Amino acid sequence: MADIPARTEMPDANGAAQMDAQMNVTTGPLPASRKLYLHGQQYPDIRVPVREIELEKSAMEPPVRVYDPSGPYTDADARIDIMAGLADVRSKWIEARGDVEHYDAREVKPEDNGLRAGTRKEAVRPFPNVVKRPLRATGGAAVTQMAYARRGIVTPEMEYVAIRENLGRTRAIENRDKGESFGAQIPDLVTPEFVREEIARGRAIIPANINHPELEPMIIGRNFLVKINANIGNSAVASDVAAEVDKMVWSIRWGADTVMDLSTGENIHNTREWILRNSPVPIGTVPIYQALEKVGGVAEDLTWEIFRDTLIEQAEQGVDYFTIHAGVRLPYVPMTAKRVTGIVSRGGSIMAKWCLSHHKESFLYERFAEICEICRAYDVSFSLGDGLRPGSIADANDESQFAELKTLGELTKTAWDMDCQVMIEGPGHVPMHKIKENMDIQLEECHEAPFYTLGPLTTDIAPGYDHITSAIGAAQIGWYGTAMLCYVTPKEHLGLPDRDDVKVGVVTYKIAAHAADLAKGHPAAKLRDDALSRARFDFRWRDQFNLSLDPETALNYHDQTLPAEGAKVAHFCSMCGPKFCSMKITQDVRDYAATLNTDEMTAVEEGMKDMSAKFKEEGGEIYVSETNES
Amino acid sequence: MADIPARTEMPDANGAAQMDAQMNVTTGPLPASRKLYLHGQQYPDIRVPVREIELEKSAMEPPVRVYDPSGPYTDADARIDIMAGLADVRSKWIEARGDVEHYDAREVKPEDNGLRAGTRKEAVRPFPNVVKRPLRATGGAAVTQMAYARRGIVTPEMEYVAIRENLGRTRAIENRDKGESFGAQIPDLVTPEFVREEIARGRAIIPANINHPELEPMIIGRNFLVKINANIGNSAVASDVAAEVDKMVWSIRWGADTVMDLSTGENIHNTREWILRNSPVPIGTVPIYQALEKVGGVAEDLTWEIFRDTLIEQAEQGVDYFTIHAGVRLPYVPMTAKRVTGIVSRGGSIMAKWCLSHHKESFLYERFAEICEICRAYDVSFSLGDGLRPGSIADANDESQFAELKTLGELTKTAWDMDCQVMIEGPGHVPMHKIKENMDIQLEECHEAPFYTLGPLTTDIAPGYDHITSAIGAAQIGWYGTAMLCYVTPKEHLGLPDRDDVKVGVVTYKIAAHAADLAKGHPAAKLRDDALSRARFDFRWRDQFNLSLDPETALNYHDQTLPAEGAKVAHFCSMCGPKFCSMKITQDVRDYAATLNTDEMTAVEEGMKDMSAKFKEEGGEIYVSETNES
Repeated sequence: MADIPARTEMPDANGAAQMDAQMNVTTGPLPASRKLYLHGQQYPDIRVPVREIELEKSAMEPPVRVYDPSGPYTDADARIDIMAGLADVRSKWIEARGDVEHYDAREVKPEDNGLRAGTRKEAVRPFPNVVKRPLRATGGAAVTQMAYARRGIVTPEMEYVAIRENLGRTRAIENRDKGESFGAQIPDLVTPEFVREEIARGRAIIPANINHPELEPMIIGRNFLVKINANIGNSAVASDVAAEVDKMVWSIRWGADTVMDLSTGENIHNTREWILRNSPVPIGTVPIYQALEKVGGVAEDLTWEIFRDTLIEQAEQGVDYFTIHAGVRLPYVPMTAKRVTGIVSRGGSIMAKWCLSHHKESFLYERFAEICEICRAYDVSFSLGDGLRPGSIADANDESQFAELKTLGELTKTAWDMDCQVMIEGPGHVPMHKIKENMDIQLEECHEAPFYTLGPLTTDIAPGYDHITSAIGAAQIGWYGTAMLCYVTPKEHLGLPDRDDVKVGVVTYKIAAHAADLAKGHPAAKLRDDALSRARFDFRWRDQFNLSLDPETALNYHDQTLPAEGAKVAHFCSMCGPKFCSMKITQDVRDYAATLNTDEMTAVEEGMKDMSAKFKEEGGEIYVSETNES
Repeated sequence: MADIPARTEMPDANGAAQMDAQMNVTTGPLPASRKLYLHGQQYPDIRVPVREIELEKSAMEPPVRVYDPSGPYTDADARIDIMAGLADVRSKWIEARGDVEHYDAREVKPEDNGLRAGTRKEAVRPFPNVVKRPLRATGGAAVTQMAYARRGIVTPEMEYVAIRENLGRTRAIENRDKGESFGAQIPDLVTPEFVREEIARGRAIIPANINHPELEPMIIGRNFLVKINANIGNSAVASDVAAEVDKMVWSIRWGADTVMDLSTGENIHNTREWILRNSPVPIGTVPIYQALEKVGGVAEDLTWEIFRDTLIEQAEQGVDYFTIHAGVRLPYVPMTAKRVTGIVSRGGSIMAKWCLSHHKESFLYERFAEICEICRAYDVSFSLGDGLRPGSIADANDESQFAELKTLGELTKTAWDMDCQVMIEGPGHVPMHKIKENMDIQLEECHEAPFYTLGPLTTDIAPGYDHITSAIGAAQIGWYGTAMLCYVTPKEHLGLPDRDDVKVGVVTYKIAAHAADLAKGHPAAKLRDDALSRARFDFRWRDQFNLSLDPETALNYHDQTLPAEGAKVAHFCSMCGPKFCSMKITQDVRDYAATLNTDEMTAVEEGMKDMSAKFKEEGGEIYVSETNES
């Protein structure tokens, strides 16, 4: 890994102080890895990225291909320039559909960046060369992937994700572990047509705003690989834009499939522009955060007009999905009064306060069809927010939570009627025995729209370790059918995640998602486990590190005990030292068994007579074990 | 926390170099905590430790009592002297039973410490004042807790664990969440008689060697709190005795319920003595490791006589449970040949090699009744080892694994026939959808003897994070009925755990065990979650830290973002800053709801008219949120 300044100097140093810092991001391939691009059949010009991990020669195995959301940053041949943004991937596809038009963008206002006109100098400089004429659907058309799918059209985006999901699947089918998929229908091979069908029926989404042409499309749905989201964003207390762009690049390097920009405070608009122009993954936001900034943080002062204007502002920038807390309805608010932790969703609490103080039904709920009109004109997907999710074990699966979920199901139908793509957000804090109920009710009430959950955390007693309390829940709900898992970092409940926290959060959630894929019986999931296990068994240390989710940490931990270079080719490890080795013994067993008849049990009995002599003959000294327990 | 040298100078500096180091261990109470001792009814002189966490005055709540395995080290009033060992807890109880006798201990031989006579100087000095006349059953009697239980006797150990398990349970019953216990029969209140019954039928064990009088008894069984084990031990590559004693003390400080000393290489005997004399928790070992050292690491040279002598050596020292891999039978060995990772258990591979090279059935299997004779004379519990556990996802739940498990069930019956206490070890590496099968088969084949599993790891692709890959599996198998979870540290597969790794491993496994207790519906488990959640909601930061599993880390993470002392009493946190706060809004909702009629839904409708006005009247400025997501 190289920490290469993507651009060491800003072309114009007149910006504010924090923008003078170098916009460093981490680039370059992961160890032993190179990026390949696969081409489509229907759309030969699409280039679908895949990471290939090269193994040692002695492995006599082909490279292992893994899903790669990291974008051009890990491509050794790519030239990264944060000031210019990423190269355009999708504009040709979008324009070829002939249903969009360029128009003059909404003017950026000081309050978009949380600034009162004239009060102080803008802190974050605008991204250079902002698009002044964004795209929008022509004449009220729906330009969503769902609209095309329902018309029977396989878009380039659909073929792209089909290829992306399929990694090595054909090779894997034979050795497939069926798993327990709880009703998910995971195909042996993902075809573009399968993708189209899943999107048409609302069971999967491709978040892909027509104004985010830098996007490398990905799919979220129960019958695809489980995805993970990383949250970034500055707050009123800390953070700057360079750090947020770096966190975005850093989080996708380790495997985040989408990124939510949860910025609050000042500079929201400009920060988001920097992130979007440099992001190959879908970017999600919670527009009510920015709307609230525009009214000085006073929830009661929010209006539909301000919110609507914010949606358009963000849709024009290219935000791929919006969290909309339209399920927080007035009658549900008092249901939360008896909770231990009340309303913990920020968006949910803003809307609750608005509803209570105006004694009115939520404008998000009442204007939902109008929100859909906006989303379908840009293909912004919905992430229907769970504003009433439980914030503690005590509050899990209560009346208010499920009342809101039912409403999210109604809203899903409304959105689908307008060809909008939808996923549903889920909790939160839930003890293990109540997790499956969340999934079951969501599937039923929300008609199989993809579920997107935060954790859930399975206990409240471990602040500082909530990536772990929640990974336990996330792995389970992912197994049961959740399509995307929102990460939780070690800093949850305590502070703002730094770079290290983001990495730990992402890797932890890759574990949860992968464990879910394995348990669901995803055809290709086991390939990487098996390759790594073979490397482990063969003492191919380098391969073991390189195949892992975090090669740097694995190598580092190994070197803490046995730092010498020779130890990385040694046929023993630090747990047992060079004395006896269960792996070595197994090889003896295997060598012996190979000489037996094919029918093993017969062989065992037949072979017993000469087993002893033969084994003694073959046995050299024993070396070492690979594990530190009995 | 204070890192107090328990004794800064050794009384005799003639020992080898590594013993000249200070024997530092961490002592003193955890933050805001004090240790109480509860007394028995049947046995008024027993003193059962419990930790009380004091809350801020503003909480208006009683202190929270939590289970406390940390021993005298966290007692502010205790004087710790590693050179002298812990105070005697149980001798009076043991001797009062009138069925044991003192006798001359077996002579310690150079090979007990892995030394060839005369080859080199002893590296680890013997513990001072080693007991020369240990205890043993008189006349072949069984002096096991099971033997007493079956005769209807409630021992002090049984009343001790009953009190220990009950923490706050009577208070909790009302608010109990029933959970899903998968057939476990968790009582509303643990009585000494309930403990006796569970032990009599083999469904729980109290590992408590009569030569480990320092022990504070604890119970392992499906109807009790889920326990965790931490592994320590030097290896041929690294570690010294001071570090191992420190790791033992350190691991129980953070919550380890038992500790296994997995030392290999030299100094095994002396290291174990230091650990035992200073351990308030049961110590487990894998005697075959030491036996192998005695034959120079050549598995083929192992004999029953050497193994038997090792068992007696360790039983006299006070080891509380033995891992015995008696289920690795000759016919099962070739079944592992087709595995991806063969045999990964060190003990299992030693026995496999022995069986193959002699072409004989395992002497552990054939001599099992004789092993039981030894164990019943000291009350050493069995931990029947899973020598054929899977070492990779690919090998999970295979023929050899379940063949061995069936044999462990047979051996359980043999041990029970001789009044020996038994638990069963389980895997290993298992994808989520195959975990429950492990539990179900174990319950059936092993007649509900407690299950004690390592993890299981739910994927192979994250070396460096295997505490997490395994916590996901451990929480689930604990929920399904596993009685004790063997921890996995971040260094698993890579190196030897250091102090930090031990802590992370222990805290991670406390999370898994606690998540399982919650899901099983343990009556008292939720008390701590609820107390912490109330503290979180009230912005009682100190209480939130103090109630957490790792107060230091929680405080440290908080201070990384908001270091000022004032921030710890602030009614906001770093995620949102002092602008808007979902917690504050909830309080508004709650205040409002409190004014409503008791029938809430009616109240909502009735109250709607004046809701708006009233809320505006009451609402001050909003402060802050407690979570960093939508």
